[in-house]
Amino acid sequence: MERQVIAKAKKAREAARKLAYLSTDIKNDALLAMADSLLKNTYNILEANALDVHEGAKNGLSQALLDRLLLNQARVADMANGLAMVASLPDPVGEVESMWTRPNGLRIGRTRVPLGVVGIIYEARPNVTVDAAGLCLKAGNAVLLRGGSEAINSNKAITNVIAEAAIREGMPEGAINLIETTDREAVNFMLKLNDYIDVIIPRGGASLIQTVVQNATVPVIETGVGNCHVFVDRYADLEKAQRIVLNAKCQRPGVCNALESLLVHQAVAAEFLPVALEALKTAGVEVRGCERTRDVAGWVNPASEEDYASEFLDLIISVKVVDGFDEALDHIYRYSTRHSEAIITENYTRAIRFLNEVDAAAVYINASTRFTDGGQFGFGAEIGISTQKLHARGPMGLKELTTNKYIVFGDGQIRE
Amino acid sequence: MERQVIAKAKKAREAARKLAYLSTDIKNDALLAMADSLLKNTYNILEANALDVHEGAKNGLSQALLDRLLLNQARVADMANGLAMVASLPDPVGEVESMWTRPNGLRIGRTRVPLGVVGIIYEARPNVTVDAAGLCLKAGNAVLLRGGSEAINSNKAITNVIAEAAIREGMPEGAINLIETTDREAVNFMLKLNDYIDVIIPRGGASLIQTVVQNATVPVIETGVGNCHVFVDRYADLEKAQRIVLNAKCQRPGVCNALESLLVHQAVAAEFLPVALEALKTAGVEVRGCERTRDVAGWVNPASEEDYASEFLDLIISVKVVDGFDEALDHIYRYSTRHSEAIITENYTRAIRFLNEVDAAAVYINASTRFTDGGQFGFGAEIGISTQKLHARGPMGLKELTTNKYIVFGDGQIRE
Repeated sequence: MERQVIAKAKKAREAARKLAYLSTDIKNDALLAMADSLLKNTYNILEANALDVHEGAKNGLSQALLDRLLLNQARVADMANGLAMVASLPDPVGEVESMWTRPNGLRIGRTRVPLGVVGIIYEARPNVTVDAAGLCLKAGNAVLLRGGSEAINSNKAITNVIAEAAIREGMPEGAINLIETTDREAVNFMLKLNDYIDVIIPRGGASLIQTVVQNATVPVIETGVGNCHVFVDRYADLEKAQRIVLNAKCQRPGVCNALESLLVHQAVAAEFLPVALEALKTAGVEVRGCERTRDVAGWVNPASEEDYASEFLDLIISVKVVDGFDEALDHIYRYSTRHSEAIITENYTRAIRFLNEVDAAAVYINASTRFTDGGQFGFGAEIGISTQKLHARGPMGLKELTTNKYIVFGDGQIRE
Repeated sequence: MERQVIAKAKKAREAARKLAYLSTDIKNDALLAMADSLLKNTYNILEANALDVHEGAKNGLSQALLDRLLLNQARVADMANGLAMVASLPDPVGEVESMWTRPNGLRIGRTRVPLGVVGIIYEARPNVTVDAAGLCLKAGNAVLLRGGSEAINSNKAITNVIAEAAIREGMPEGAINLIETTDREAVNFMLKLNDYIDVIIPRGGASLIQTVVQNATVPVIETGVGNCHVFVDRYADLEKAQRIVLNAKCQRPGVCNALESLLVHQAVAAEFLPVALEALKTAGVEVRGCERTRDVAGWVNPASEEDYASEFLDLIISVKVVDGFDEALDHIYRYSTRHSEAIITENYTRAIRFLNEVDAAAVYINASTRFTDGGQFGFGAEIGISTQKLHARGPMGLKELTTNKYIVFGDGQIRE
């Protein structure tokens, strides 16, 4: 196991050296060839995937997990389209973000360069294999993929297809690597390969992310957990509020930018809550509220402390009536995972205070938290949503898969 | 021990909430008051420092370490001047780096906000206490300081003085915190306080940094190790080359941006090396070279593999004659710690290839590696030099002590 992981990591490191200064044209040609090859090999990929799905069903995977694992012709086509889209995005590598001249004549530029080797640790979602490889490659990085063991046959088939196409188009061997052993220890081993891996990005549920954060010595970008709030202020347009709350909770409840906890100013609770909560119930949402919520909507279940701290990722919402603006801020400070937070208000000063004082990757005035997403933000694609403060925070696009290098043009300068 | 560390970390976290949106005026007033207070309390600080120096001498600290530990009136004045300088720098917090409008009318801005709580782990250099506190505060962060136990009395005296002055000027209590226990376990405990600390920056030697990187679950910015090369190309101006090599090696040999290893193109070895190495010898440098180096300068000591991999931080240099440009790149790729690398050449294409193909925080054409420094780069000050790729690479100024927050201005937008 260790030998395989090290061998692949070394290959990735070697490839990264060459990838760093490949032209955008070559990278784009490779991405398009990878897309083409996925389509041409759809049958092989679906065959491998059928093995995984069969095995998964036998091992009692839930319907939801089986659905994430399952590929079909349309899903393979989606993966191919994703690669073509990444090819169409601007290449961040080589951008000189700023350049200046020092009094001694030294000209110093700050330029974007690839991170090097990016490790991606993810669950049984074969589409991540293609997404992550495409984004890493476009940003000039070699990628070391470690997907969930339930998807191992799918991932092998996919990686073979895209790696072969990439190499054919001039990518260095080792640009795309899959850890093929399903030994769980391989992840722990990978997490400590500081000599070969520059950054690890876990993509998946809270327990996967915690395993990575707790055990890695390689720098990690933590992604994902979102206990997101919407605060309906006393000066809210209650129609806007209801529309946003319904959207943020129900449009796709299983994702990290979905609403989990609703705060309502006491001055509008009696007017807003009965209607809004009824609409949530009609949409199939289980509502858990504080006493004051239950005063105005008796059918609501009681909420516990734990409910306020929970990311349900499901059609469940916690509700709390607050005395005022400051209590809302305090509640959010206490329970927020600093992902996405929204205020609904028509009051200018409160809107700006919320923006300034709430600490989160994305803070919204009068909009659904569901927009925290690389595509929705206009980045074209995303490798994940960072919930840590180091390196990148919020949706991460191609630029977040790069670092900087200072380039210094001298003429014999020495330091006095 | 654990109780003290947690209590201070909690206080820092609470303070960070308020610090995040303090005005620049208040922060600057606090910095100037801290400077003033240091000067006024010079006597108390020197008294506390004398205890540390006495204890250090008794415990057999080396002369170099004792010198780093020692404070005098001039050094306290330097620390105060440093704070005043930080007050004069522009505040990165609140800068909106970019703002754009999406097709649905959402206006999205990327703004700079403080990291939150910054942990600084350092050795027995009391000046770091002031430097780090000043920079963190200016960038709106609370700071949790853990200095070397040899400087504990100095650090306590300094922290009391500056924290008291900061609070007097309106900083929240807990903005500046010193871990006062000298229990070594306190560091390991601190490294895992993910709930309270956003980032840890170790400042010190290689073993301190490795301890932090290996044990932290809190995100770390790795700083410092520099095995820096100068490559004298066949097309070099040999006079420039000699001036730069002497400067990069001798101007301050104990720092991370000093030259450690000299590579010389074989075509100019016979002309360049005898004179250049003689000059190094005259400057007190011990030269360790390959066989071809010793062919042209018989007095040179033989270099081992280990020498090429070493950061001497001393008046020692390793020298290697290479067959050509590619061998120079390969050698650098193999031995470089990716800190600062320089080529000396008058050939345009080689200069640009070196710039593009060498992977390091700073890559130089025809200048001394000694310029890799926040002050020299024009950042006004630095908290350290990052040698990792995540978050920041190279000299880190105030901006690198911040992260971003997306601010989103809506008008009822929901996701379709």
